[in-house]
Amino acid sequence: MTSPGASESAFRVVDLIRKKRDGGALSASEIGCIVDGYTQGTIPDYQIAAWLMAVVLRGMTREELAALTHTMLHSGEVLDLGFLPAKKVDKHSTGGVGDKTSLVLASLVAAGGLYVPMISGRGLGHTGGTLDKLESIPGFRVGLSVAEFRRVLKACGASMIGQTEQIAPADRKLYALRDVTGTVESPNLICASIMSKKLAEGTDALVLDVKTGSGAFMKKEEDAVFLAELMVETGERMGKQMAALITNMDQPLGRMVGNAMEVEECIAVLHGGGPQDLRELCLHLAAWMFYLGGTTKTVAEGKQLSAEMISSGRAFDRFRQMVELQGGDISAIDDPARLPSADHRVDVPSSRAGYVSAIQCEHIGTACVILGGGREKKEDSVDPAVGIVVHKKIGDKVADGEPLCTIHCHSDEQAARAKQLIAESYQISAAPPAHRPSLIHRVIHKGESH
Amino acid sequence: MTSPGASESAFRVVDLIRKKRDGGALSASEIGCIVDGYTQGTIPDYQIAAWLMAVVLRGMTREELAALTHTMLHSGEVLDLGFLPAKKVDKHSTGGVGDKTSLVLASLVAAGGLYVPMISGRGLGHTGGTLDKLESIPGFRVGLSVAEFRRVLKACGASMIGQTEQIAPADRKLYALRDVTGTVESPNLICASIMSKKLAEGTDALVLDVKTGSGAFMKKEEDAVFLAELMVETGERMGKQMAALITNMDQPLGRMVGNAMEVEECIAVLHGGGPQDLRELCLHLAAWMFYLGGTTKTVAEGKQLSAEMISSGRAFDRFRQMVELQGGDISAIDDPARLPSADHRVDVPSSRAGYVSAIQCEHIGTACVILGGGREKKEDSVDPAVGIVVHKKIGDKVADGEPLCTIHCHSDEQAARAKQLIAESYQISAAPPAHRPSLIHRVIHKGESH
Repeated sequence: MTSPGASESAFRVVDLIRKKRDGGALSASEIGCIVDGYTQGTIPDYQIAAWLMAVVLRGMTREELAALTHTMLHSGEVLDLGFLPAKKVDKHSTGGVGDKTSLVLASLVAAGGLYVPMISGRGLGHTGGTLDKLESIPGFRVGLSVAEFRRVLKACGASMIGQTEQIAPADRKLYALRDVTGTVESPNLICASIMSKKLAEGTDALVLDVKTGSGAFMKKEEDAVFLAELMVETGERMGKQMAALITNMDQPLGRMVGNAMEVEECIAVLHGGGPQDLRELCLHLAAWMFYLGGTTKTVAEGKQLSAEMISSGRAFDRFRQMVELQGGDISAIDDPARLPSADHRVDVPSSRAGYVSAIQCEHIGTACVILGGGREKKEDSVDPAVGIVVHKKIGDKVADGEPLCTIHCHSDEQAARAKQLIAESYQISAAPPAHRPSLIHRVIHKGESH
Repeated sequence: MTSPGASESAFRVVDLIRKKRDGGALSASEIGCIVDGYTQGTIPDYQIAAWLMAVVLRGMTREELAALTHTMLHSGEVLDLGFLPAKKVDKHSTGGVGDKTSLVLASLVAAGGLYVPMISGRGLGHTGGTLDKLESIPGFRVGLSVAEFRRVLKACGASMIGQTEQIAPADRKLYALRDVTGTVESPNLICASIMSKKLAEGTDALVLDVKTGSGAFMKKEEDAVFLAELMVETGERMGKQMAALITNMDQPLGRMVGNAMEVEECIAVLHGGGPQDLRELCLHLAAWMFYLGGTTKTVAEGKQLSAEMISSGRAFDRFRQMVELQGGDISAIDDPARLPSADHRVDVPSSRAGYVSAIQCEHIGTACVILGGGREKKEDSVDPAVGIVVHKKIGDKVADGEPLCTIHCHSDEQAARAKQLIAESYQISAAPPAHRPSLIHRVIHKGESH
């Protein structure tokens, strides 16, 4: 083999690959040997690629998954946030279109007395990324050092940054390999990747927002539930308070898709307005964060507290404070018209009258990527100004020629492909659909049911 | 990724890996893209490793297997032996202990008027290799150029050489990767590897000796039959006359295990003697070679012709001629006492009286490797002189302390581990076993049954 790093351990690694290939379970120390060897460069990528494919096709026991997560988590720095005087709690979403709750939740939950150390990602594929949204606020820095992160957290209760080189390096290396070897789509590998990063943040509790539907990575609810259960159990094995909400992603969340436009919509929610579905989901997720963090005795009380944090203006104040501490221009928060914007408007009209019966939601996300608001490749830069306003959602009545969406962009030419994709993604029926999608499908939590 | 050669095609390759991962079938051109890309270095080994594991666990359709074999076959030179005035026919064995029929068959079938262009391998693991056996004849050259190979073939009807750099380079590269990624044990990949090399020889017909039992790679007969059917069908798709014999490898074939000792046993068979099982299997395999090559109308006539080639001395004369043409010392053929030999003798006595009811045959092969007569690693050199004489086979009566085997080696110390391993591999029962293993379990051939 030409790759560097093939060592004597290669012989032992072959035995481990064969064991997994034949459906066996590896011990914690065997999994540690594979992951540490790869991270340190003593096991070549072709052996890891074969092992990853065997994991995809043979699965893992819960014990193997816990060992994998543990090894990946401890491949780098694990933040010790014990100096903070209250519980640390975070939320993770598996990603969707218009999925912007993090921007609301961090400051809202911090306003309620918990700490939210949030390490987020960038958009890839049809989904947006929290970091790209935050960076549409002029001056906002997501690349804080760990020391700065701790200072902002202590000062305002929330900080939102990108993954650092120090956190879970095994995941970065494994993910890059999975991306080119067709081994991304594995619940076990997805769980270990998410949980190793989230647990390295030093949180006590984690609420998962697992999306399902036409705009989610998991189109089928059963797949979303399976992944959610894996993540909840893995977190609990590591002593964390865990809950997962299975939520609908058959249509964009809220009405805005696009980086600066989504920040504006979040500010509206923090001011007590904004679209009903986004507001409702934020309140639910925050309620679970308060409940798991021990601030409230029930989820219902948590929801009440969340609503109070908004109505009192304390949630918005915290957001403003966090933006300021991370270098962002608060004048753009106070007056969202100062956020980046694209002046050109292109409506996407309905070709017939009727009711919206379904939306190919993934295509709405892809349309935003095509406009320049997302990434096709990791190296792409993102235009913060462009985006899509979603006027019509499932169940809405629509007249012939009435706009389904409006594209914010820089020219007609730029909008052409996105316009066609959006138009094709709407299904219009003569009769209204039997029911609109329910926002929260179910909750996975190992306590009393809620 | 650090490996060289990651190209734009990487994106397309990921889609092919995912297709196979999800149980789909790749087209011939897709398989061609993967194998050619790897051979030419434009697809990195980690992608091929993931694809190989997906093939191991998802299998292949017969069309995919034919396409894989075809691409590997045409990755290098395909010999054109059309200048030879009769049919070309070869035999391939999946490997066993004391499996030495090639040395008898090449000259025997050539004596009957066919051409036998035989490209063989070296021993690896517990099985011996034809090339190592031939090289125990002083001076014998297995590394002929293609031009020399053609000359020897034309002159005496048979030539036996090792794989050249020019033949099926894709197989060499893939096999090296399979060896370190736990993807050796796949009937489809084994079939493509064997058939791509054998069909590159330019044969018209191929008889497969697929071993099953405790000394074979396929311990279970159903696995041997599955592989045999794959190979027969793949060969027939490429226009070759094909047959496979499923033969017993629950005990060593013949009585000799060791390179020079096996040459001596083959010379005995060519002189009309030798152990009954070895002689019988050689006659059967040669019969099928004559039948598939069109020399005889039935297999029974082929067997008769084979016996005549031996009794007339013509088979031995051809062997002698081939050895001479390939640089070997014919005085060692005329007087096998001149072959390399190890003078020290160590008996392996039975620890009790009774009947041999089973032999862990793989361990007999491993004992020979331990003596230095085989390879643990590809780089190891082989001692032609050492070996094992098998006195007792399944069903034989044995007295307490009577030798089961005799080790030929250089010292007691050298024999110690091998002696123990051989002793442990024999199972002695009070009563004789119900039946001795039958030599030929079945024949796989797409014509009338035989």
